[in-house]
Amino acid sequence: MRTFRLVLEYDGRDFDGWQRQAEGTRTVQGTLEQAVERISGRAARVVGASRTDAGVHAEGQLASLDLDTPLAAGALQRALNGVLPRDVAVVGLEEAPGFHALRDARSKLYRYALWNGAVPSPLRRERCWWVRGRLELGALREAAAALVGRHDFAAFRAAHSAVRSSERTLHEIRVDGEGGGQLDLVVRGDGFLRHMVRILVGSLVEVARGRRSPSWVTDVLASRERSRAGPTAPPEALTLVRVFFDSDGKSGPSGNARA
Amino acid sequence: MRTFRLVLEYDGRDFDGWQRQAEGTRTVQGTLEQAVERISGRAARVVGASRTDAGVHAEGQLASLDLDTPLAAGALQRALNGVLPRDVAVVGLEEAPGFHALRDARSKLYRYALWNGAVPSPLRRERCWWVRGRLELGALREAAAALVGRHDFAAFRAAHSAVRSSERTLHEIRVDGEGGGQLDLVVRGDGFLRHMVRILVGSLVEVARGRRSPSWVTDVLASRERSRAGPTAPPEALTLVRVFFDSDGKSGPSGNARA
Repeated sequence: MRTFRLVLEYDGRDFDGWQRQAEGTRTVQGTLEQAVERISGRAARVVGASRTDAGVHAEGQLASLDLDTPLAAGALQRALNGVLPRDVAVVGLEEAPGFHALRDARSKLYRYALWNGAVPSPLRRERCWWVRGRLELGALREAAAALVGRHDFAAFRAAHSAVRSSERTLHEIRVDGEGGGQLDLVVRGDGFLRHMVRILVGSLVEVARGRRSPSWVTDVLASRERSRAGPTAPPEALTLVRVFFDSDGKSGPSGNARA
Repeated sequence: MRTFRLVLEYDGRDFDGWQRQAEGTRTVQGTLEQAVERISGRAARVVGASRTDAGVHAEGQLASLDLDTPLAAGALQRALNGVLPRDVAVVGLEEAPGFHALRDARSKLYRYALWNGAVPSPLRRERCWWVRGRLELGALREAAAALVGRHDFAAFRAAHSAVRSSERTLHEIRVDGEGGGQLDLVVRGDGFLRHMVRILVGSLVEVARGRRSPSWVTDVLASRERSRAGPTAPPEALTLVRVFFDSDGKSGPSGNARA
């Protein structure tokens, strides 16, 4: 049995998220496994580093695949891309003995795209969250800084989440852009709870809009209550940009990612 | 009667191009005119500076509208955006006595997006033309330079085009990017024949691929025969970025455009 490390790009619009589910749903994991089975004739399991939600995109999802195949890595990649639908592609693939995407992922980088124009932007509507009005980016940055570090993020996860520990380390929350146009929130951390990035974004936007003070975010964090945080920002503006693995922070094979 | 100057952004995917056609087609012009009629109760005619093809996008199409309305410009813009579908928006609107988009347009700036990665890019597939393999950008630039200036572009227009004169002035063809990733061809000229930008791109890509020499483009131009030029590049990767008007090259009201 050989083990491969994959980097995947996908357009999340027509997927019910990453994780394989019941019959009749179309997931990225299920689509990939079908592609592997089609070219190898064997049942296969693809493990992803991040369980992206329905509608969320990826420029650099990291995955591992155990497969008994005579194909070289390059040929396997081409064969997979030859049978995959157009909204998902293997943009990197290499043999990596012992690699496991879930266990070996060290940190994840997400980008959340806001459109802050006064009027709607048809060309951005499927990839940005339109937030109107003046945004106070100084307040947003102040609130974001208070979230960086190791914390219990129970207030920023989907209600009824089953995961035991809600402690995570946020390495960085960066705002790219000046307001009045496109604005990206770049978030990097060792792992994220269900809906965590989107609830963080929804809460930080409340602060940027002036509806809440920066210190409110600190209070929400301390409360550990989901009901205290802001709304869950919509999924279509969120992209998993890259997953870093290995303890020294080396990145995976490079994909088509831009940032 | 008052006259307004409009800047429009649209996602061309679900439109049968700009120009109003027979019943049953969905065009940008027809959609705008319906929106104007809905808010004003009067038949209206919207004139566009460029007749973009089916599938082509716009960040800054320029248009003029004659309308008897008591609304101020800002209120008219908000009313239009309130009834327009999500794939088209009025991103700029101001009163401009005597303005006529077709007559007063001086030059147009288009961007054609190529994806030159070794593997497909799902997130770019609807807005880029995927061209594989090594591209010789030096040769592309040499061929492009020979096209700049005033020429008879009959070889670079759709066959059976009805327009009388095929003389046009190309001000600039610029290549943004280094190959191996996303590559934009930026084209600016005083006007374009039907399919001209796309045939220029299709021909320049032949040169970049090494299938033709840079001097071939000069021969094609001199021949004035459509059959000698390269293929028509696909529409979905083309965006009308901006239309300049007035003899001094002043631009219209700024839209959401990025470049």
